[in-house]
Amino acid sequence: MIRGFCIGRFQPYHNGHDKIIRTISNEVDELVIGIGSAQKSHSVKDPFTAGERIEMIRKSLEDIDLLYYIIPLQDLEFNSLWVSHVRSLSPKFQVVYSNNPLVIQLFKEAGADVRSTPLHDRKRLSGTEIRKLMVEGDTKGWKKLVPSAVADVIEEINGIERIKAVASTDNKYSL
Amino acid sequence: MIRGFCIGRFQPYHNGHDKIIRTISNEVDELVIGIGSAQKSHSVKDPFTAGERIEMIRKSLEDIDLLYYIIPLQDLEFNSLWVSHVRSLSPKFQVVYSNNPLVIQLFKEAGADVRSTPLHDRKRLSGTEIRKLMVEGDTKGWKKLVPSAVADVIEEINGIERIKAVASTDNKYSL
Amino acid sequence: MIRGFCIGRFQPYHNGHDKIIRTISNEVDELVIGIGSAQKSHSVKDPFTAGERIEMIRKSLEDIDLLYYIIPLQDLEFNSLWVSHVRSLSPKFQVVYSNNPLVIQLFKEAGADVRSTPLHDRKRLSGTEIRKLMVEGDTKGWKKLVPSAVADVIEEINGIERIKAVASTDNKYSL
Amino acid sequence: MIRGFCIGRFQPYHNGHDKIIRTISNEVDELVIGIGSAQKSHSVKDPFTAGERIEMIRKSLEDIDLLYYIIPLQDLEFNSLWVSHVRSLSPKFQVVYSNNPLVIQLFKEAGADVRSTPLHDRKRLSGTEIRKLMVEGDTKGWKKLVPSAVADVIEEINGIERIKAVASTDNKYSL
Amino acid sequence: MIRGFCIGRFQPYHNGHDKIIRTISNEVDELVIGIGSAQKSHSVKDPFTAGERIEMIRKSLEDIDLLYYIIPLQDLEFNSLWVSHVRSLSPKFQVVYSNNPLVIQLFKEAGADVRSTPLHDRKRLSGTEIRKLMVEGDTKGWKKLVPSAVADVIEEINGIERIKAVASTDNKYSL
Amino acid sequence: MIRGFCIGRFQPYHNGHDKIIRTISNEVDELVIGIGSAQKSHSVKDPFTAGERIEMIRKSLEDIDLLYYIIPLQDLEFNSLWVSHVRSLSPKFQVVYSNNPLVIQLFKEAGADVRSTPLHDRKRLSGTEIRKLMVEGDTKGWKKLVPSAVADVIEEINGIERIKAVASTDNKYSL
Repeated sequence: MIRGFCIGRFQPYHNGHDKIIRTISNEVDELVIGIGSAQKSHSVKDPFTAGERIEMIRKSLEDIDLLYYIIPLQDLEFNSLWVSHVRSLSPKFQVVYSNNPLVIQLFKEAGADVRSTPLHDRKRLSGTEIRKLMVEGDTKGWKKLVPSAVADVIEEINGIERIKAVASTDNKYSL
Repeated sequence: MIRGFCIGRFQPYHNGHDKIIRTISNEVDELVIGIGSAQKSHSVKDPFTAGERIEMIRKSLEDIDLLYYIIPLQDLEFNSLWVSHVRSLSPKFQVVYSNNPLVIQLFKEAGADVRSTPLHDRKRLSGTEIRKLMVEGDTKGWKKLVPSAVADVIEEINGIERIKAVASTDNKYSL
Repeated sequence: MIRGFCIGRFQPYHNGHDKIIRTISNEVDELVIGIGSAQKSHSVKDPFTAGERIEMIRKSLEDIDLLYYIIPLQDLEFNSLWVSHVRSLSPKFQVVYSNNPLVIQLFKEAGADVRSTPLHDRKRLSGTEIRKLMVEGDTKGWKKLVPSAVADVIEEINGIERIKAVASTDNKYSL
Repeated sequence: MIRGFCIGRFQPYHNGHDKIIRTISNEVDELVIGIGSAQKSHSVKDPFTAGERIEMIRKSLEDIDLLYYIIPLQDLEFNSLWVSHVRSLSPKFQVVYSNNPLVIQLFKEAGADVRSTPLHDRKRLSGTEIRKLMVEGDTKGWKKLVPSAVADVIEEINGIERIKAVASTDNKYSL
Repeated sequence: MIRGFCIGRFQPYHNGHDKIIRTISNEVDELVIGIGSAQKSHSVKDPFTAGERIEMIRKSLEDIDLLYYIIPLQDLEFNSLWVSHVRSLSPKFQVVYSNNPLVIQLFKEAGADVRSTPLHDRKRLSGTEIRKLMVEGDTKGWKKLVPSAVADVIEEINGIERIKAVASTDNKYSL
Repeated sequence: MIRGFCIGRFQPYHNGHDKIIRTISNEVDELVIGIGSAQKSHSVKDPFTAGERIEMIRKSLEDIDLLYYIIPLQDLEFNSLWVSHVRSLSPKFQVVYSNNPLVIQLFKEAGADVRSTPLHDRKRLSGTEIRKLMVEGDTKGWKKLVPSAVADVIEEINGIERIKAVASTDNKYSL
């Protein structure tokens, strides 16, 4: 039995994430999906709460034939504790999938088996780009880049209204 | 669609928890299961990590016909923030199931619909009792009180050795 | 100009606190009133939030001829930082009023002028005793021991219902 | 009875803040004034401690006919807990006054009645501008922009010397 | 080259600690000495600051022929992160010396080589007993149980006055 | 007896630090060396753990005729508590050596005797410059700027591989 681990901020969960996870699912028996910066929400860079992101992933993967775990992970600001933190909150895993240099380095120093993740259509499938389309009000644009279950969750929580509101820059004259 | 929420420390997940969750599953479409004191482990009262407890639950519920979410929840030591903390890390839920007076009070003050959970064979089905059997080495005793998947996880992680070790009280003369 | 400092948990603010503060008000020009354990609420020992306690004090002292400041102070669990913490959140004060040995010792080591506070009818005027009367439902009993403004605040927030709820001990069989 | 809430960093409390609060005072019976980033001090952006800022406000409002509360609020770095944090440390309020998009969004999601604050002479009445004048040594300049009580507090704590010191950029060669 | 690790609270550093460290010094080339509960001070159980305890140890070991490191370690309240925390703040070590069951278990799960420490005259050489003698004012008694350098440090910081003050239990009637 | 205090991040400990400390050693009997940002590691700006930095300093100063203490200091993000934090974790010191404006200001407000440190060949002897050479792979370059003991520690921990890895910017397409 091989259990893998991968991590993302999933702001929001998009087609790129979805393809990566479905690809990994062919290599492992079980997968732990870490939600990074779980404490963050209500900013342009991190608009959605961990709970909302968990729901996006769960609903998008309803059809997948894989036992997986979703684990919210708060930022620690203490890099040398990070691997232990992940391991404490996760079922034990044997393989780490990541392209993030810091994640790779930390897990390698801890003796883990680290593999790179496949990349897909990287220009358009980026969270930054998707959030930009959301702020600009290009509904058709961003909806094409995420699973339909994600669009449903965002609509249900009024997510577009939220990201537009916090993107507003006229906060100079408040108290 | 009704989504419920319940919470436990699950040290370990036992037949009592299992019955309660299966009962609740008849009343809701989806269920959020919070893992309390997620940061605790390696003590007699809290021997298992959140990751280990997540695996226990996931494996025990493999056959259940219910979409559920497992959310590790660290202690906040700030009661009046607790409901917001739970809500931030969970998909939105409509009903709270709890018999814990503090949980009930906090959710009621936050306007939630709170219902009590059914109780089963309470004397034997308590975490305290099960951990006592573990420390005493009564393997046959504690194994009868937990789902077989839980016994498997505990064996795999050498959980009994761990709880016995930390239960040892001869720590007076260390540095 | 002499500014004093005193601290209490004020769970709730009662006639004993009130007498002490009115006595101190004769010795100082201004007074800083620290609210200890500000992060705590919803327990038998600490039923009320800092905000509720601030309102109790403010309303009880509406008639006093004294410029005073109310400062919520969260527990630090780091005694040697505590005096700096208080001083950072308070306007500068010259005299500390306290009968608490730890508070006295910490401020003395920091070079402060520490004076003891007068004591009044100590048996009945204790927070512990008042909270016990609240849990037991002796309304007439506890109301005599607090300023009427405090009774009003407690009623408005359903405080008695809250303390009774969290005092309930039948929490053994929840998840 | 209507109690309002407003928040600012008040670095320092200036004539713009003062006008806004006096305007709000006509609309409410009581007002909670939150001191944001209460843990910060001794930087160019946040030179004054929460205690010093509390004193500035209290002294500037000595003549106002309004019952108000001043509450220091430390940054949480967890936006979805922020409203609960404020509510826990404040007496209950019915109306929020803010022009800050994040504050507005968080309180709106929590169901609060949020109103915008009036703006006055926004170019000159900004904390950034006032701190710039302080660092440049333009005493006459900044004193015109703050209540005289604020200038007194700053003088008493040697505030100008402090902001000039921490604004010094020759810190390259220290250890 | 073999570097060892040991840990204690050292409240205060006494002859028992001293003998253990001198015994270990025969087995290793270098030694890391962790100061546990480094954030605690000013209580009967933990009267001395980490800085004071560091000085006690450094002065007591001035004559030892061993390269050693003293590392203050704050409590984490997150057992599964503790080994990483220690390792991040310490030079890399190969052997752990401990009789504490939790320390032993945590390091064993992390794959460390753990050895037990020798014990000496355990009844009298306990921190609890020494602090009791201090509170009771038995100067001759406690001084016999600690290195003379420790007695000097305690005198210099007025440590006996401090522990007696915080041991005072008449704190019932303060605010 | 005069004990001094100085602080640095020591990322890594280099010849400039070494010269300063050897110069100070002529003015004091004992010296406390604080390791700033002790919780940070595994980034380009802060590649080394506190434990690694402690070892660098200890090994570089093996020949010095001075009793010194090395104290790891985590960032507090609460400037007005910082001096108390340092004092709690350090043996008592009488003189502070620093060229950092914030450190100087905080200690001056706390009444300390603050002196500036001598500066040496400041252009080349900067941590920023040394880390740049490390990332660029200029081994000969950076080795000339640090004590040989530091180069040994960095080699032993594969420090160059680490800083190069985390300096890699191709982290756009990970999950």
